Amino acid sequence: MYLGAIEAGGTKFVCAVSNEQLEIVDQVCIPTTTPQETLRKVFSFFNQYELRSMGIGSFGPIDINIQSATYGFITSTPKPGWRNFDFLGTIKKHYQVPVAWTTDVNAAAYGEYKKGSARDDASCLYLTVGTGIGGGAVIDGKLLEAFGHPEMGHVLVRTHEEDTFQGSCPYHGNCLEGMASGPAIEGRTGRKAQSLKKEDSVWEMEAYYLAQALNNYTLILRPDKIILGGGVMNQIHLFPLIRTAFEELNNAYVPVPVLEQYIVAPGLGDHAGITGCLLLASTLEVEKES
Amino acid sequence: MYLGAIEAGGTKFVCAVSNEQLEIVDQVCIPTTTPQETLRKVFSFFNQYELRSMGIGSFGPIDINIQSATYGFITSTPKPGWRNFDFLGTIKKHYQVPVAWTTDVNAAAYGEYKKGSARDDASCLYLTVGTGIGGGAVIDGKLLEAFGHPEMGHVLVRTHEEDTFQGSCPYHGNCLEGMASGPAIEGRTGRKAQSLKKEDSVWEMEAYYLAQALNNYTLILRPDKIILGGGVMNQIHLFPLIRTAFEELNNAYVPVPVLEQYIVAPGLGDHAGITGCLLLASTLEVEKES
Repeated sequence: MYLGAIEAGGTKFVCAVSNEQLEIVDQVCIPTTTPQETLRKVFSFFNQYELRSMGIGSFGPIDINIQSATYGFITSTPKPGWRNFDFLGTIKKHYQVPVAWTTDVNAAAYGEYKKGSARDDASCLYLTVGTGIGGGAVIDGKLLEAFGHPEMGHVLVRTHEEDTFQGSCPYHGNCLEGMASGPAIEGRTGRKAQSLKKEDSVWEMEAYYLAQALNNYTLILRPDKIILGGGVMNQIHLFPLIRTAFEELNNAYVPVPVLEQYIVAPGLGDHAGITGCLLLASTLEVEKES
Repeated sequence: MYLGAIEAGGTKFVCAVSNEQLEIVDQVCIPTTTPQETLRKVFSFFNQYELRSMGIGSFGPIDINIQSATYGFITSTPKPGWRNFDFLGTIKKHYQVPVAWTTDVNAAAYGEYKKGSARDDASCLYLTVGTGIGGGAVIDGKLLEAFGHPEMGHVLVRTHEEDTFQGSCPYHGNCLEGMASGPAIEGRTGRKAQSLKKEDSVWEMEAYYLAQALNNYTLILRPDKIILGGGVMNQIHLFPLIRTAFEELNNAYVPVPVLEQYIVAPGLGDHAGITGCLLLASTLEVEKES
């Protein structure tokens, strides 16, 4: 029997199958097109295996409220065809196995908590900074979810005094995502983030915005570790800039771990999400057996 | 056998004793002076009763990390005499009973969660807006705590475009507490909050600051309910202003409950904290018996 995992992103779906030791035995990457076409390829991959349970980490927003009529749906995404798509229901119709259902960033947070940079911590927060910005958290072994899942990428930030960019978020304009996502960097500079020099002043702005968000996450959640992933964070020279800006904002107010161990890169690199999905699938298995 | 509760504030200590049905049988209010003098009065009150367990909700910051050498201490408060005071240890030396130890706002959040405005909800956040601003949260029946307790009152806010006040927070200047606490209102207007007319434009500013914080709490925690207590919130005309400002900031992005049921006053009024302390004491009792 195998564990199945789907890291469902807006650009691509990563599907993986592992044995019970969580060693991946097969993996496929499927471009995200229409739900019908995408899911057809997902099924043809998983149909090769006898699955014991599955874990899905999906792009959002998604409905995680078990009481809700649209539980398991992708809800208000602008992505064509996916709005109000019953993702979990479609999967469950095909495979009569327990399925863990959460956001892509929650799955990544869980992966990092169990096997990555936060494997020795009691809690962590994972933030992805890329096309969008999103975050998830694990506190005492549990994903942080209540009325819904977090939407940490849209917290308000103060505009940097030298920044004239108006922000790219269709909902909030100059929220964190509107000011610090990959498209925001491109909108501000006219160039892709990865083509900008390390010395470009845009990175200090980027660090200022991210540090504001990290400051607020710290004050509200007090996580043991903050893990920053996503395409923009491949610019690793950002880390020291963010730590410096964070230190200034906190001004020694709340105790935090040593910053080099507090604000860190994912231990699992790009595999945090798919690993988290497998781990969530394995958790279900344990529950089933108990 | 009785339950004991201490709601330890920077101005006064409320001490209560209840029976096992959580009915308060005796209560006293002690001014907060030196730790020695204050605790002497606390002991002479509780010495009259045979206690089964106690709950303390203390002003902070406090150390809640059981692994820490200063667990149970009040830490970096500016309050004379209380900095690095071993509050929990001093209580435990006198009473050999289990003692629950958390912040005053966490205790209030727990009280509201169990018996107050959030008694039918799976999660809630409690924010006090008074001399200082502080918050606590309960998620799935558990207080939100990780590396430390939340310090939600110090989140960053954007300065209102008509506000020239520089902020009163000694650590952050114009953070939420610096811009929206009672002293901030007084610093801005030269008058006590309770003496200002409902029509004063300062209330719209106040609502703008609080709504920004509530927006961020919502995006990060997604609580089922947000309860606003404390002296400033006795100005109940603030509630509709805050809801309106919140609605504008959220811009229909994250689903939230109907705002009249989402942003509310404490169901227990000023008794949220002491009730929470008793409830936390009773929880310990249950654990002891199991």
